[in-house]
Amino acid sequence: MNIGKKLRISRILDENGKTVIVPIDHGIEGYYPELERPEQLIDEFIEGGANAVLLRRGMLERVAPKIAGKLGVVYRVTGATGSSPDVNDQRVIASTYEALYRGADAVVFTIIAGHPKENDMFTMFGEVSDIAYSLGLPLIGEVDAVPSSKADRGELLRQGTRYLSEEGADLIKTYFPEDESFYRSIIKYSLVPVVAAGGPKMESPKKVLEFAQKVMDAGAVGVCFGRNVWQYEKPSAILKALSLIVKKGKTAEEALKLL
Amino acid sequence: MNIGKKLRISRILDENGKTVIVPIDHGIEGYYPELERPEQLIDEFIEGGANAVLLRRGMLERVAPKIAGKLGVVYRVTGATGSSPDVNDQRVIASTYEALYRGADAVVFTIIAGHPKENDMFTMFGEVSDIAYSLGLPLIGEVDAVPSSKADRGELLRQGTRYLSEEGADLIKTYFPEDESFYRSIIKYSLVPVVAAGGPKMESPKKVLEFAQKVMDAGAVGVCFGRNVWQYEKPSAILKALSLIVKKGKTAEEALKLL
Amino acid sequence: MNIGKKLRISRILDENGKTVIVPIDHGIEGYYPELERPEQLIDEFIEGGANAVLLRRGMLERVAPKIAGKLGVVYRVTGATGSSPDVNDQRVIASTYEALYRGADAVVFTIIAGHPKENDMFTMFGEVSDIAYSLGLPLIGEVDAVPSSKADRGELLRQGTRYLSEEGADLIKTYFPEDESFYRSIIKYSLVPVVAAGGPKMESPKKVLEFAQKVMDAGAVGVCFGRNVWQYEKPSAILKALSLIVKKGKTAEEALKLL
Amino acid sequence: MNIGKKLRISRILDENGKTVIVPIDHGIEGYYPELERPEQLIDEFIEGGANAVLLRRGMLERVAPKIAGKLGVVYRVTGATGSSPDVNDQRVIASTYEALYRGADAVVFTIIAGHPKENDMFTMFGEVSDIAYSLGLPLIGEVDAVPSSKADRGELLRQGTRYLSEEGADLIKTYFPEDESFYRSIIKYSLVPVVAAGGPKMESPKKVLEFAQKVMDAGAVGVCFGRNVWQYEKPSAILKALSLIVKKGKTAEEALKLL
Amino acid sequence: MNIGKKLRISRILDENGKTVIVPIDHGIEGYYPELERPEQLIDEFIEGGANAVLLRRGMLERVAPKIAGKLGVVYRVTGATGSSPDVNDQRVIASTYEALYRGADAVVFTIIAGHPKENDMFTMFGEVSDIAYSLGLPLIGEVDAVPSSKADRGELLRQGTRYLSEEGADLIKTYFPEDESFYRSIIKYSLVPVVAAGGPKMESPKKVLEFAQKVMDAGAVGVCFGRNVWQYEKPSAILKALSLIVKKGKTAEEALKLL
Repeated sequence: MNIGKKLRISRILDENGKTVIVPIDHGIEGYYPELERPEQLIDEFIEGGANAVLLRRGMLERVAPKIAGKLGVVYRVTGATGSSPDVNDQRVIASTYEALYRGADAVVFTIIAGHPKENDMFTMFGEVSDIAYSLGLPLIGEVDAVPSSKADRGELLRQGTRYLSEEGADLIKTYFPEDESFYRSIIKYSLVPVVAAGGPKMESPKKVLEFAQKVMDAGAVGVCFGRNVWQYEKPSAILKALSLIVKKGKTAEEALKLL
Repeated sequence: MNIGKKLRISRILDENGKTVIVPIDHGIEGYYPELERPEQLIDEFIEGGANAVLLRRGMLERVAPKIAGKLGVVYRVTGATGSSPDVNDQRVIASTYEALYRGADAVVFTIIAGHPKENDMFTMFGEVSDIAYSLGLPLIGEVDAVPSSKADRGELLRQGTRYLSEEGADLIKTYFPEDESFYRSIIKYSLVPVVAAGGPKMESPKKVLEFAQKVMDAGAVGVCFGRNVWQYEKPSAILKALSLIVKKGKTAEEALKLL
Repeated sequence: MNIGKKLRISRILDENGKTVIVPIDHGIEGYYPELERPEQLIDEFIEGGANAVLLRRGMLERVAPKIAGKLGVVYRVTGATGSSPDVNDQRVIASTYEALYRGADAVVFTIIAGHPKENDMFTMFGEVSDIAYSLGLPLIGEVDAVPSSKADRGELLRQGTRYLSEEGADLIKTYFPEDESFYRSIIKYSLVPVVAAGGPKMESPKKVLEFAQKVMDAGAVGVCFGRNVWQYEKPSAILKALSLIVKKGKTAEEALKLL
Repeated sequence: MNIGKKLRISRILDENGKTVIVPIDHGIEGYYPELERPEQLIDEFIEGGANAVLLRRGMLERVAPKIAGKLGVVYRVTGATGSSPDVNDQRVIASTYEALYRGADAVVFTIIAGHPKENDMFTMFGEVSDIAYSLGLPLIGEVDAVPSSKADRGELLRQGTRYLSEEGADLIKTYFPEDESFYRSIIKYSLVPVVAAGGPKMESPKKVLEFAQKVMDAGAVGVCFGRNVWQYEKPSAILKALSLIVKKGKTAEEALKLL
Repeated sequence: MNIGKKLRISRILDENGKTVIVPIDHGIEGYYPELERPEQLIDEFIEGGANAVLLRRGMLERVAPKIAGKLGVVYRVTGATGSSPDVNDQRVIASTYEALYRGADAVVFTIIAGHPKENDMFTMFGEVSDIAYSLGLPLIGEVDAVPSSKADRGELLRQGTRYLSEEGADLIKTYFPEDESFYRSIIKYSLVPVVAAGGPKMESPKKVLEFAQKVMDAGAVGVCFGRNVWQYEKPSAILKALSLIVKKGKTAEEALKLL
């Protein structure tokens, strides 16, 4: 691995290659009152021991003074708005070059497997992949699947995870299907390490931690949980619990004691 | 031929201009459990005497230490995912310049003859052809045909083979139709040497070797077989058998004795 | 300050804007047996609590795995060899763009005030300054003076410090003259914060710590000591002592107890 | 290390990182009747088991068909002619981009330590270093010293070796001084592996082999001998003997039995 | 050889690789009344069976209508004026790109071996060499030696011939020394074919033809005679005689019968 990538990825993954990333990029997709005061969230993330934060450029401009020297910066270059005809019609909306200039430690690019415009997304991914490579900037490929039958979802996510790793992602962030039999297979089929996306708030912190344990058991290197962190009262507490599972190999049961 | 091309093509074709290439680029099109541990496959390919491996950039990043100095690198610049609306809607997803910088010995570009977007593909092929030429990088044109009647398929493949060779391919990888009467004609109509694609796993190794013999008899300079190599228990064994046919002019019957 | 700069400078300066930087870029100027095994030095620097290391690209390639996530990277873009007719004839020998791609947190550029080629150096500094600014990359201006009378030296260093800060340096690394009456004036006249260069090994650690205290008292934000760190038996110990002075406001006398 | 570099360097260094390189780039510096028929020399080099040949672009154009697939290509980008006022006034005379396009596995750049124009050479080296890096092309830094006293020569060579490795050489080719006490120190002070240049024809093959053993014992990874190979009657024989020493760890005495 | 080069060089060399080129580029170096009406000379060259004409861009603009389809165009990119302090201080005075755009079949670049500025000339030659190569434009390296002792002259010319061929010339035009023992050696030491320059008008056509025979016997592929063609009354006649020697292998004695 190129030294630029090595130096930057070290601000996202810890020495053992594990990570807890917190995304706060949801504002373009809907109304989340918790995202009104991002500075307070950042304080919680730092206190909770998060490794990195995943955000968009405007948010970075706002919170940079708080995160400088404390959290890795995962900079999102794709997006689609909640008020658009199709929030899954993910486009490249930010320059990868600018991401580097502004201090990104990685860029993240989302593809929706099975989407009618998947070929377009994949083509754009390929372009960003080559640019990021030439800049020494790690690329995180994020995979979700178009709404579909449960059975399909597992296969779509495994497929998406693989193809982004085939075309240059250094790390994959993927959703997982309800069908747990796919967990291990999705991770094994990727050519690069995988972190688990959290999705909408689960019914309880217990469920969140149990899910984290399951994906770690299946071979993931970490989690990238947003709503399941900052929609709880005390984000720092749930982050500490997640860290125990991700970095110390503890069970959800043990971690739950922190809450 | 430009010296850069000459030096690079010598890592794909042997001294007599013959070659056995193994593609492992299928991961973006579906789930192949055999591709979960590519390093083991590479060991088999080297043991079996393959000349080169055909892959995508993420896979190259992963297996480069294993193949360095041992296998030629055929780097794929086109693709479409198995979960997309149309896996035949092949796009340019990787930079030809980057392919060179990363050590590719050739780039490979797929066109689907008869596809509704064939004009678009052909335009993109032309662009890549000129870039590759200026870089001294050999270009392999790969041809498949849209699903169609048997009769059409032979004509489409012959047509595609010719037009890619007309626009700058240095080597053609093509599928062959069921109708064997087309074999010789497809190869003769190409302006440059042709290697045969294998396609899905055939019913037996015997069939694989017989097909290899037939295309060699028809004038091909080699084979580019993936699933028909690595979906067998012992890829190195079938590769050795293929080498006998491709490089030593042995019959399928003789080669079969190796299995 | 642009956010890229803010994020990067935070890996060089601590939360209070203080820093202990260790340069290991001397290999091009002479033979230093201590620099034969840089990995061991890096371990000492980390243990001693250094903030950043100042080095050249070949050294970065070698020690990147060790410093990733632990030390800021100050990447030198100028140099002249010890075997050249004039080691003060500093040239731009490395690309600022490449510095960024390879993970530099800042670039450092040396000017020799009073040198016959000072105008040339200053012109090159201006060019690098604009490039670094556009990339969000902090620029450290380093000042030394041509060998001259004691009185001149103070004025040359004050002058150089000012003009580099006038033309875009974000931080100054400067030598200090023997005449201590210049200390405060040099720092005050700079438009940006100043760190003190150490120069050749002093006669004792006590002298090193006393010098550190003096420049901190005069308004510096830190030190950039190489030979006075790694030419001592236990670099980590002297670094800890320096940190006490630079970051905790302790006296040299107090810090000396650590040795 | 970047994958392009990894793939290319594997055509110069063997699996254990050892190498025997033969330079045939001397034609611009004088009249060597042996270089009138380079094709015959190439046959000898291949038979003798050389890893790579070091040459200029016109020579590459001529011998490419012979070396394709058999010898690594070290492409010289600097030079000065034997009829010029100063053969040590080394300039960049060939494009690094073109070197890549024409199939170079590495470029080689010579600096003369202690030369009045050393600063200019070093500046050019820096530029080529960044270009080669961005292209994934290994860079070999070659060091010689200006004619001087014996004592100086050892120090100049150690200095030059170090500074080229500090500024991005991936491998060093250096001359060695008469004073053998410098051998180990020159190699240890380099940040990257070192191969030994041979210089003018020595008095006997025995001397050549003894020198090879000495530099290998001192830590070198191989030799780059030209005149001491092709000015002997049977270059392939002396190459086989050198290979025994370099790659099998044999003594000069043992290797001499091959002659 | 690249196809552009192959197509263009075929307008300079005949099917057997032989050529008679006539230079008319002397106007910048002095007053030659014969060059006042170039159109008439062109008619003679065509009648005499010349293969190509060597000229400068202004001359090409003037005679293009006459030579189109009849004579190859060797376009000079270097020069120094007769009124300058040093007519041997050859500089690049014309763009190689423009040469291509204006229809050049080759560019010619002169170096004066042994000149105090030889390193500068060689550096420029290297740059033009890479440009011409990338454009598919043949490059003719022309060698002369600084005025010197007879013995030196042979060595300088052999040296210059070799180094231009080492750095990318496709064809060499060289002067020959008085000492005929160098003839064969100069040609043998070149890596590419050689044509002989004529120099000032010789004492008789017989001498011209005898010289032509001598260089052809020594291995040259042709001649490039200007003053020895157009300073004779009937240039077409001497050209026909030269053609007999160069292309039909006739002796000077036989050819002389044509005059």
